[in-house]
Amino acid sequence: MSRSRVELTPVGVVESPLTDPAAAPKQGDEGAPDAWLVFEPEVLDALDGIGPGDQILVLTWLDRASRDVLKVHPRSDPSRKPQGVFSTRSPDRPNPIGLHRVEVVALDGPRILVQNLEALDGTPIVDVKPVLSADVGER
Amino acid sequence: MSRSRVELTPVGVVESPLTDPAAAPKQGDEGAPDAWLVFEPEVLDALDGIGPGDQILVLTWLDRASRDVLKVHPRSDPSRKPQGVFSTRSPDRPNPIGLHRVEVVALDGPRILVQNLEALDGTPIVDVKPVLSADVGER
Repeated sequence: MSRSRVELTPVGVVESPLTDPAAAPKQGDEGAPDAWLVFEPEVLDALDGIGPGDQILVLTWLDRASRDVLKVHPRSDPSRKPQGVFSTRSPDRPNPIGLHRVEVVALDGPRILVQNLEALDGTPIVDVKPVLSADVGER
Repeated sequence: MSRSRVELTPVGVVESPLTDPAAAPKQGDEGAPDAWLVFEPEVLDALDGIGPGDQILVLTWLDRASRDVLKVHPRSDPSRKPQGVFSTRSPDRPNPIGLHRVEVVALDGPRILVQNLEALDGTPIVDVKPVLSADVGER
Protein backbone atom coordinates (compact mmCIF):
# COMPACT_ATOMS: atom_id res chain seq x y z
CA MET A 1 0.00 0.00 0.00
CA SER A 2 1.19 3.48 -0.79
CA ARG A 3 2.05 5.51 2.28
CA SER A 4 3.02 8.58 0.29
CA ARG A 5 2.08 11.80 1.96
CA VAL A 6 -0.05 14.39 0.24
CA GLU A 7 0.13 18.12 0.58
CA LEU A 8 -2.77 20.52 1.12
CA THR A 9 -2.52 24.19 0.19
CA PRO A 10 -4.84 26.39 2.26
CA VAL A 11 -7.26 28.34 0.04
CA GLY A 12 -8.28 30.80 2.76
CA VAL A 13 -8.59 31.43 6.48
CA VAL A 14 -11.33 31.79 9.11
CA GLU A 15 -11.82 35.20 10.74
CA SER A 16 -13.79 34.66 13.93
CA PRO A 17 -14.21 36.12 17.41
CA LEU A 18 -13.31 32.62 18.71
CA THR A 19 -9.70 32.62 19.83
CA ASP A 20 -9.66 30.35 22.90
CA PRO A 21 -9.82 26.61 22.11
CA ALA A 22 -11.04 25.86 25.65
CA ALA A 23 -14.00 28.23 25.28
CA ALA A 24 -14.99 27.26 21.73
CA PRO A 25 -18.23 25.32 21.20
CA LYS A 26 -17.73 21.71 20.12
CA GLN A 27 -20.23 21.98 17.27
CA GLY A 28 -21.62 24.84 15.20
CA ASP A 29 -25.13 24.34 16.57
CA GLU A 30 -23.92 24.83 20.15
CA GLY A 31 -23.73 28.61 20.19
CA ALA A 32 -20.98 29.19 17.62
CA PRO A 33 -20.74 32.73 16.25
CA ASP A 34 -20.89 34.10 12.75
CA ALA A 35 -17.51 34.14 11.04
CA TRP A 36 -15.89 35.31 7.82
CA LEU A 37 -14.26 32.95 5.36
CA VAL A 38 -11.50 34.94 3.67
CA PHE A 39 -10.22 33.42 0.44
CA GLU A 40 -6.94 33.76 -1.41
CA PRO A 41 -7.10 35.90 -4.58
CA GLU A 42 -6.05 33.01 -6.81
CA VAL A 43 -9.07 30.82 -5.92
CA LEU A 44 -11.86 33.41 -6.19
CA ASP A 45 -13.16 31.91 -9.46
CA ALA A 46 -13.91 28.72 -7.51
CA LEU A 47 -16.54 30.63 -5.44
CA ASP A 48 -18.69 31.43 -8.47
CA GLY A 49 -22.20 30.05 -7.90
CA ILE A 50 -22.25 30.42 -4.11
CA GLY A 51 -24.85 32.84 -2.78
CA PRO A 52 -26.67 33.97 0.39
CA GLY A 53 -28.86 31.26 1.86
CA ASP A 54 -26.76 28.39 0.48
CA GLN A 55 -25.90 25.51 2.79
CA ILE A 56 -22.22 24.70 2.39
CA LEU A 57 -19.65 22.38 3.90
CA VAL A 58 -16.43 24.10 4.92
CA LEU A 59 -13.38 21.86 5.30
CA THR A 60 -10.66 23.27 7.52
CA TRP A 61 -7.24 22.23 8.77
CA LEU A 62 -7.47 22.12 12.57
CA ASP A 63 -3.96 23.39 13.09
CA ARG A 64 -4.12 23.32 16.88
CA ALA A 65 -5.13 19.64 17.09
CA SER A 66 -2.97 16.69 18.17
CA ARG A 67 -2.26 14.20 15.39
CA ASP A 68 -1.03 11.33 17.59
CA VAL A 69 -4.31 10.77 19.46
CA LEU A 70 -6.26 7.61 18.51
CA LYS A 71 -8.74 7.36 21.41
CA VAL A 72 -10.62 10.05 23.34
CA HIS A 73 -13.38 10.41 25.90
CA PRO A 74 -16.40 11.48 23.80
CA ARG A 75 -17.08 15.20 24.21
CA SER A 76 -14.07 15.37 26.59
CA ASP A 77 -16.25 13.82 29.30
CA PRO A 78 -14.00 11.65 31.52
CA SER A 79 -17.04 9.66 32.72
CA ARG A 80 -17.51 8.33 29.17
CA LYS A 81 -15.55 5.33 27.96
CA PRO A 82 -12.74 6.18 25.52
CA GLN A 83 -13.62 5.62 21.85
CA GLY A 84 -11.62 5.61 18.66
CA VAL A 85 -11.38 9.10 17.18
CA PHE A 86 -12.90 7.88 13.88
CA SER A 87 -16.16 7.26 15.81
CA THR A 88 -16.11 10.79 17.31
CA ARG A 89 -15.78 14.36 16.02
CA SER A 90 -12.74 15.10 18.19
CA PRO A 91 -10.40 17.59 16.51
CA ASP A 92 -7.53 15.35 17.65
CA ARG A 93 -7.02 12.67 14.95
CA PRO A 94 -4.31 11.56 12.51
CA ASN A 95 -5.41 14.06 9.83
CA PRO A 96 -7.25 16.86 11.66
CA ILE A 97 -9.63 17.99 8.93
CA GLY A 98 -12.59 19.95 10.28
CA LEU A 99 -15.99 19.56 8.62
CA HIS A 100 -18.46 22.37 9.23
CA ARG A 101 -21.96 22.72 7.78
CA VAL A 102 -22.89 26.40 7.69
CA GLU A 103 -25.29 28.77 5.94
CA VAL A 104 -24.00 31.60 3.78
CA VAL A 105 -25.22 35.00 5.02
CA ALA A 106 -23.43 37.41 2.68
CA LEU A 107 -20.63 37.74 0.15
CA ASP A 108 -18.18 40.63 0.02
CA GLY A 109 -15.47 40.17 -2.64
CA PRO A 110 -13.08 37.50 -1.36
CA ARG A 111 -15.00 37.14 1.91
CA ILE A 112 -18.05 35.02 2.77
CA LEU A 113 -19.99 35.58 6.00
CA VAL A 114 -21.38 32.35 7.47
CA GLN A 115 -23.48 31.45 10.50
CA ASN A 116 -22.59 29.20 13.43
CA LEU A 117 -18.98 28.27 12.68
CA GLU A 118 -17.12 26.69 15.60
CA ALA A 119 -13.65 26.96 13.99
CA LEU A 120 -11.10 29.18 15.73
CA ASP A 121 -9.82 32.47 14.34
CA GLY A 122 -6.93 31.84 11.96
CA THR A 123 -7.93 28.27 11.07
CA PRO A 124 -6.88 27.48 7.48
CA ILE A 125 -9.66 26.63 5.00
CA VAL A 126 -8.84 23.78 2.60
CA ASP A 127 -12.09 23.19 0.67
CA VAL A 128 -15.73 24.24 0.29
CA LYS A 129 -18.50 22.00 -1.06
CA PRO A 130 -22.27 22.35 -1.52
CA VAL A 131 -24.50 20.18 0.68
CA LEU A 132 -26.07 17.35 -1.37
CA SER A 133 -29.23 15.43 -0.61
CA ALA A 134 -27.09 12.27 -0.27
CA ASP A 135 -25.15 13.94 2.58
CA VAL A 136 -28.32 14.25 4.57
CA GLY A 137 -29.38 10.65 3.98
CA GLU A 138 -32.00 11.26 1.28
CA ARG A 139 -31.80 8.52 -1.32
CA MET B 1 -2.02 35.24 6.03
CA SER B 2 -0.20 31.99 6.38
CA ARG B 3 0.20 30.09 3.14
CA SER B 4 2.08 27.26 4.76
CA ARG B 5 1.28 23.89 3.31
CA VAL B 6 0.07 21.05 5.45
CA GLU B 7 0.74 17.38 5.00
CA LEU B 8 -1.79 14.54 5.13
CA THR B 9 -0.76 10.98 5.89
CA PRO B 10 -3.14 8.40 4.41
CA VAL B 11 -4.63 6.14 7.11
CA GLY B 12 -5.89 3.49 4.68
CA VAL B 13 -6.99 2.77 1.14
CA VAL B 14 -10.20 1.94 -0.74
CA GLU B 15 -10.53 -1.54 -2.27
CA SER B 16 -13.28 -1.37 -4.88
CA PRO B 17 -14.31 -2.95 -8.19
CA LEU B 18 -14.31 0.61 -9.60
CA THR B 19 -11.11 1.17 -11.56
CA ASP B 20 -12.17 3.35 -14.51
CA PRO B 21 -12.72 7.04 -13.64
CA ALA B 22 -14.88 7.53 -16.75
CA ALA B 23 -17.26 4.73 -15.72
CA ALA B 24 -17.48 5.59 -12.01
CA PRO B 25 -20.75 7.04 -10.67
CA LYS B 26 -20.56 10.70 -9.67
CA GLN B 27 -22.24 10.09 -6.32
CA GLY B 28 -22.61 7.10 -4.03
CA ASP B 29 -26.39 7.00 -4.49
CA GLU B 30 -26.02 6.64 -8.27
CA GLY B 31 -25.27 2.94 -8.41
CA ALA B 32 -21.92 2.83 -6.62
CA PRO B 33 -20.80 -0.60 -5.41
CA ASP B 34 -19.88 -1.91 -2.01
CA ALA B 35 -16.21 -1.39 -1.17
CA TRP B 36 -13.71 -2.23 1.54
CA LEU B 37 -11.92 0.40 3.58
CA VAL B 38 -8.55 -1.11 4.51
CA PHE B 39 -6.77 0.67 7.37
CA GLU B 40 -3.12 0.87 8.33
CA PRO B 41 -2.18 -1.22 11.39
CA GLU B 42 -1.08 1.84 13.37
CA VAL B 43 -4.52 3.52 13.29
CA LEU B 44 -6.71 0.53 14.18
CA ASP B 45 -7.41 1.88 17.69
CA ALA B 46 -9.10 4.87 16.04
CA LEU B 47 -11.81 2.56 14.64
CA ASP B 48 -13.03 1.49 18.09
CA GLY B 49 -16.74 2.31 18.42
CA ILE B 50 -17.64 1.85 14.75
CA GLY B 51 -20.08 -0.98 14.04
CA PRO B 52 -22.41 -2.41 11.38
CA GLY B 53 -25.32 -0.11 10.55
CA ASP B 54 -23.40 3.06 11.44
CA GLN B 55 -23.59 6.00 9.04
CA ILE B 56 -20.10 7.38 8.55
CA LEU B 57 -18.36 10.03 6.50
CA VAL B 58 -15.25 8.82 4.70
CA LEU B 59 -12.77 11.49 3.63
CA THR B 60 -10.48 10.47 0.80
CA TRP B 61 -7.68 12.00 -1.24
CA LEU B 62 -8.85 12.01 -4.86
CA ASP B 63 -5.41 11.29 -6.24
CA ARG B 64 -6.50 11.25 -9.89
CA ALA B 65 -8.08 14.73 -9.76
CA SER B 66 -6.73 17.95 -11.29
CA ARG B 67 -5.76 20.59 -8.72
CA ASP B 68 -5.57 23.57 -11.08
CA VAL B 69 -9.25 23.58 -12.09
CA LEU B 70 -11.37 26.42 -10.63
CA LYS B 71 -14.50 26.23 -12.84
CA VAL B 72 -16.35 23.25 -14.30
CA HIS B 73 -19.56 22.43 -16.12
CA PRO B 74 -21.78 20.94 -13.39
CA ARG B 75 -21.95 17.15 -13.71
CA SER B 76 -19.60 17.40 -16.74
CA ASP B 77 -22.61 18.56 -18.82
CA PRO B 78 -21.33 21.02 -21.46
CA SER B 79 -24.83 22.49 -21.83
CA ARG B 80 -24.63 23.78 -18.26
CA LYS B 81 -22.91 27.08 -17.49
CA PRO B 82 -19.49 26.70 -15.82
CA GLN B 83 -19.53 27.19 -12.06
CA GLY B 84 -16.84 27.56 -9.44
CA VAL B 85 -15.71 24.19 -8.14
CA PHE B 86 -16.56 25.21 -4.55
CA SER B 87 -20.24 25.29 -5.61
CA THR B 88 -20.01 21.78 -7.14
CA ARG B 89 -18.85 18.33 -6.06
CA SER B 90 -16.34 18.03 -8.91
CA PRO B 91 -13.30 15.96 -7.89
CA ASP B 92 -11.18 18.59 -9.65
CA ARG B 93 -10.45 21.38 -7.10
CA PRO B 94 -7.43 22.93 -5.37
CA ASN B 95 -7.45 20.34 -2.55
CA PRO B 96 -9.23 17.25 -3.93
CA ILE B 97 -10.66 15.82 -0.72
CA GLY B 98 -13.53 13.41 -1.35
CA LEU B 99 -16.44 13.30 1.09
CA HIS B 100 -18.52 10.12 1.04
CA ARG B 101 -21.45 9.27 3.27
CA VAL B 102 -21.75 5.49 3.55
CA GLU B 103 -23.26 2.81 5.77
CA VAL B 104 -21.06 0.25 7.51
CA VAL B 105 -22.01 -3.32 6.52
CA ALA B 106 -19.36 -5.38 8.31
CA LEU B 107 -16.00 -5.21 10.09
CA ASP B 108 -13.17 -7.69 9.55
CA GLY B 109 -10.01 -6.77 11.48
CA PRO B 110 -8.43 -3.79 9.71
CA ARG B 111 -11.13 -3.79 7.02
CA ILE B 112 -14.58 -2.19 6.97
CA LEU B 113 -17.14 -3.10 4.30
CA VAL B 114 -19.35 -0.15 3.27
CA GLN B 115 -22.23 0.35 0.85
CA ASN B 116 -22.43 2.65 -2.17
CA LEU B 117 -18.94 4.15 -2.30
CA GLU B 118 -18.11 5.95 -5.55
CA ALA B 119 -14.36 6.25 -4.84
CA LEU B 120 -11.99 4.41 -7.19
CA ASP B 121 -9.92 1.38 -6.21
CA GLY B 122 -6.68 2.52 -4.58
CA THR B 123 -7.97 5.89 -3.41
CA PRO B 124 -6.21 6.90 -0.16
CA ILE B 125 -8.40 7.38 2.93
CA VAL B 126 -7.46 10.34 5.11
CA ASP B 127 -10.20 10.47 7.78
CA VAL B 128 -13.43 8.88 9.02
CA LYS B 129 -16.12 10.68 11.03
CA PRO B 130 -19.56 9.78 12.39
CA VAL B 131 -22.56 11.54 10.84
CA LEU B 132 -24.00 14.12 13.27
CA SER B 133 -27.50 15.54 13.32
CA ALA B 134 -26.02 18.97 12.52
CA ASP B 135 -24.59 17.57 9.27
CA VAL B 136 -28.08 16.74 8.08
CA GLY B 137 -29.52 20.11 8.97
CA GLU B 138 -31.26 19.19 12.21
CA ARG B 139 -30.91 22.03 14.69
